[in-house]
Amino acid sequence: MGSLDTTPTAAFADVAGGGFEPLNADDVRSYLHKSVDFIYDYYKSVESLPVLPGVEPGYLRRLLQSVPPTSSAPFDIALKEVRDAVVPGMTHWASPNFFAFFPSTNSAAAIAGELIASAMNTVGFTWQASPASTEMEVLALDWLAQLLRLPPTFMNRTAAAGRGTGGGGVILGTTSEAMLVTLVSARDAALRRAGSVGVAGITRLAVYAADQTHSTFFKACRLAGFDPANIRSIPTGPETDYALDPARLLEVMQADVDAGLVPTYVCATVGTTSSNAVDPVGAIADVAAVFNAWVHIDAAYAGSACICPEFRHHLDGVERVDSISMSPHKWLMTCLDCTCLWVRDTHRLTDSLETNPEYLKNDASESGTVTDLKDMQVGVGRRFRGLKLWMVMRTYGSAKLQEHIRSDVAMAKMFEDAVRADHRFEVVVPRNFALVCFRIRPQGTDLTEEDADVVNRELMERLNRTGKAYLAHTAIGGKFVLRFAVGSSLQEERHVRSAWELIKKTTTEIFEEETM
Amino acid sequence: MGSLDTTPTAAFADVAGGGFEPLNADDVRSYLHKSVDFIYDYYKSVESLPVLPGVEPGYLRRLLQSVPPTSSAPFDIALKEVRDAVVPGMTHWASPNFFAFFPSTNSAAAIAGELIASAMNTVGFTWQASPASTEMEVLALDWLAQLLRLPPTFMNRTAAAGRGTGGGGVILGTTSEAMLVTLVSARDAALRRAGSVGVAGITRLAVYAADQTHSTFFKACRLAGFDPANIRSIPTGPETDYALDPARLLEVMQADVDAGLVPTYVCATVGTTSSNAVDPVGAIADVAAVFNAWVHIDAAYAGSACICPEFRHHLDGVERVDSISMSPHKWLMTCLDCTCLWVRDTHRLTDSLETNPEYLKNDASESGTVTDLKDMQVGVGRRFRGLKLWMVMRTYGSAKLQEHIRSDVAMAKMFEDAVRADHRFEVVVPRNFALVCFRIRPQGTDLTEEDADVVNRELMERLNRTGKAYLAHTAIGGKFVLRFAVGSSLQEERHVRSAWELIKKTTTEIFEEETM
Repeated sequence: MGSLDTTPTAAFADVAGGGFEPLNADDVRSYLHKSVDFIYDYYKSVESLPVLPGVEPGYLRRLLQSVPPTSSAPFDIALKEVRDAVVPGMTHWASPNFFAFFPSTNSAAAIAGELIASAMNTVGFTWQASPASTEMEVLALDWLAQLLRLPPTFMNRTAAAGRGTGGGGVILGTTSEAMLVTLVSARDAALRRAGSVGVAGITRLAVYAADQTHSTFFKACRLAGFDPANIRSIPTGPETDYALDPARLLEVMQADVDAGLVPTYVCATVGTTSSNAVDPVGAIADVAAVFNAWVHIDAAYAGSACICPEFRHHLDGVERVDSISMSPHKWLMTCLDCTCLWVRDTHRLTDSLETNPEYLKNDASESGTVTDLKDMQVGVGRRFRGLKLWMVMRTYGSAKLQEHIRSDVAMAKMFEDAVRADHRFEVVVPRNFALVCFRIRPQGTDLTEEDADVVNRELMERLNRTGKAYLAHTAIGGKFVLRFAVGSSLQEERHVRSAWELIKKTTTEIFEEETM
Repeated sequence: MGSLDTTPTAAFADVAGGGFEPLNADDVRSYLHKSVDFIYDYYKSVESLPVLPGVEPGYLRRLLQSVPPTSSAPFDIALKEVRDAVVPGMTHWASPNFFAFFPSTNSAAAIAGELIASAMNTVGFTWQASPASTEMEVLALDWLAQLLRLPPTFMNRTAAAGRGTGGGGVILGTTSEAMLVTLVSARDAALRRAGSVGVAGITRLAVYAADQTHSTFFKACRLAGFDPANIRSIPTGPETDYALDPARLLEVMQADVDAGLVPTYVCATVGTTSSNAVDPVGAIADVAAVFNAWVHIDAAYAGSACICPEFRHHLDGVERVDSISMSPHKWLMTCLDCTCLWVRDTHRLTDSLETNPEYLKNDASESGTVTDLKDMQVGVGRRFRGLKLWMVMRTYGSAKLQEHIRSDVAMAKMFEDAVRADHRFEVVVPRNFALVCFRIRPQGTDLTEEDADVVNRELMERLNRTGKAYLAHTAIGGKFVLRFAVGSSLQEERHVRSAWELIKKTTTEIFEEETM
């Protein structure tokens, strides 16, 4: 495609004698309208594209030029290369046939919000640097806190009531960042309490989570400098459906105290990535309170479901934890990236994260009446993060959002029922939300456990190679298990039905080959 | 505005019996075309809007409903509220009259790239989870590395040459994250070298930067668990134009070694935020090599200028450092957020940042032939980050990008010359790029140093209150100094000239009032 680039072209509107105008409004409009039409075509066709592409590592470099062009080219060239070279190598998360991992749900309102934010391109590190973007983020967080019925202690201190609660929130990029900033805050508070000189006491601090907790938690602990020997991954089993057992947590924390360690932080997960296990929030908070440890709830995926009253009980006890995060980019129809973090006491964050260089000083910050969001995150720079989330809630309203959650759960239940009705399969753990963990079972098929693992892996690989569905797997209790995650935003009942038919047919083929 | 929300509306295209379709392609097209027209109008009008808004803290909550709506509303309602309530409270970074901080430059191609990425909404944590987005990111990084003439050791190991170098890159959200992941990698390597049991040796590790280094560096050190007592902020002064003195660095590092500490990491800045000082990269690398310390270059802003041969010398010595980061969202016309990090040995990153949960295992990762970008960042989830950066380079080409940098620098020089020609003002430090640090000078105006600070602050505040320009300040050598940063993407020579006229006129007014 390099040949397309040999002659300079008049790709830009030139006024005032040929200057380069990267933000010329006519160009912006033209490029964006073309992009919108590209997106329209993409959504119209994505259902028919292989979900998982059949490309080999390095494929893109063989299609696109490896040296950056010197000359400009019409925008159509870039768009053509995206169409011809990029799209065929995508794993189509937007496909209705995508059932892997967790869906990255999306919506027209969210994309529009992100688009406007990209064009305004503000950097809202302090309130003054962009009052509207800071206040919109705070408002969106308070709205979502209301939908989740979080206690008022997590609402922003400039809440409508006018009385500061000390609580508040911030929108971050990922759950990992929410874990990291709360871990660092808990670490620093524990060091202060322990009278540590500098960080000398860090080797005595201990942190806790179930073994089903997302790997990024254990990574975040290492990033924050906790001693690997004191990062506890507490075993779980089928007796709690792989949720953290509070009695076990108490034993482990007490043993650490007896050994001279300082319990510092407990991460409870509402909807684990592997199997959607739900750690008992209230009971964990009670145990942690004995040791004055910080409790964080990671509800990255399932938090969105808690806007429905029938799922809200999974957050019971949240009024006794220190922080909670969830990611609307997973299941609340808000495109990447958008992770909401609420804390009960923002000062515990800002004590560890505040910076105050001369060039960011301003009267508003010094008045103490505003939120400077840079002091609740890792970095300084930040996009206009609240707009798309607010647009989703403003446009669709909570009733439609609840309807969407319920529709996904109903489709998952439909799939679960189908699995249970086929003697060759089993549902491995109870379904809590819209994820079904299932497998071909040894008992119904005369397979050994080892053979079952082989057959289930074969099933997954064959399904994924068809391009008609994409499923991921996990290990539960040492078994190879398929994960069927409903919820891709274009998904309808017929896609779930088709996937199930494909699973049954492929399973039959595998067994027929085995017996031949 | 709550009254707009009392009646449910038919805001969504309903097919198949009334289901809620958040990604209905017709809705997407309609919302986005409306948003594009909004953006067109915004760019056409932004010049006439007050750059810094005159709103009070809490203003937005008084304009928008504080309770999230239950019912849906036409997208036009959200757009109207953005127009009526959000825009008047924005600090308009896109305004051509914005001269504060560093500009967040942008372009039609970048916004288009981000838009398409938002719509595809892939999560490229592993290569398999989205081959095209991983390969596009790697390609964009290799292209930009070529424009910057980085040594091949920083290119990706799957580079066109086919021979792995061990180097590579990743696109992150902010410079802070680039600092954090390299600090953690350097920390862990130093602990291993020192034979530390767990993190016990962390209290002996020391890190170094000039006192002009961005505050986020010192914060990143604390996040990574370094002892505050061992985070060295090395004084600079006018004799080096506020750049780090390698001789001073050597003294401090040697003194630490003599005291039993382990020099671990040095951050060199090319283009400091305060005054655009340039630390001497090669000399710093030579000093750090004596102690086997990691050297990182933070070229967040000025790195973009180094695509021009005449500025590239600021990176001389880069072949001897361990990592370098720069942010195209600052000066390479790529909307937020986009920070590029390159490292000479990706294994030093992945040794600290790799995770390998069962549900992410796949054949491609296990083959060792692909890059899994999750292992070079804090989190796991990640947008399709490379597309917009690639689109900028693909569409404009390096010649136009260089032209844009040079045009900004020429405008800054024009401003600098005007300041120097007026006896009431002085340029406080030499101008290196497109930032001019200046002030009303005591010598030309019979002011004391204290009075000069007061008058310069008054000048800045009056300018900013006009809404016709927005400048930020800094402190250099204890003096209050105004920062005039050229480069907002809609900026033309006439805006710089108008700002200068406004500065002169306002200064005259201040002096006339003083003498009245």
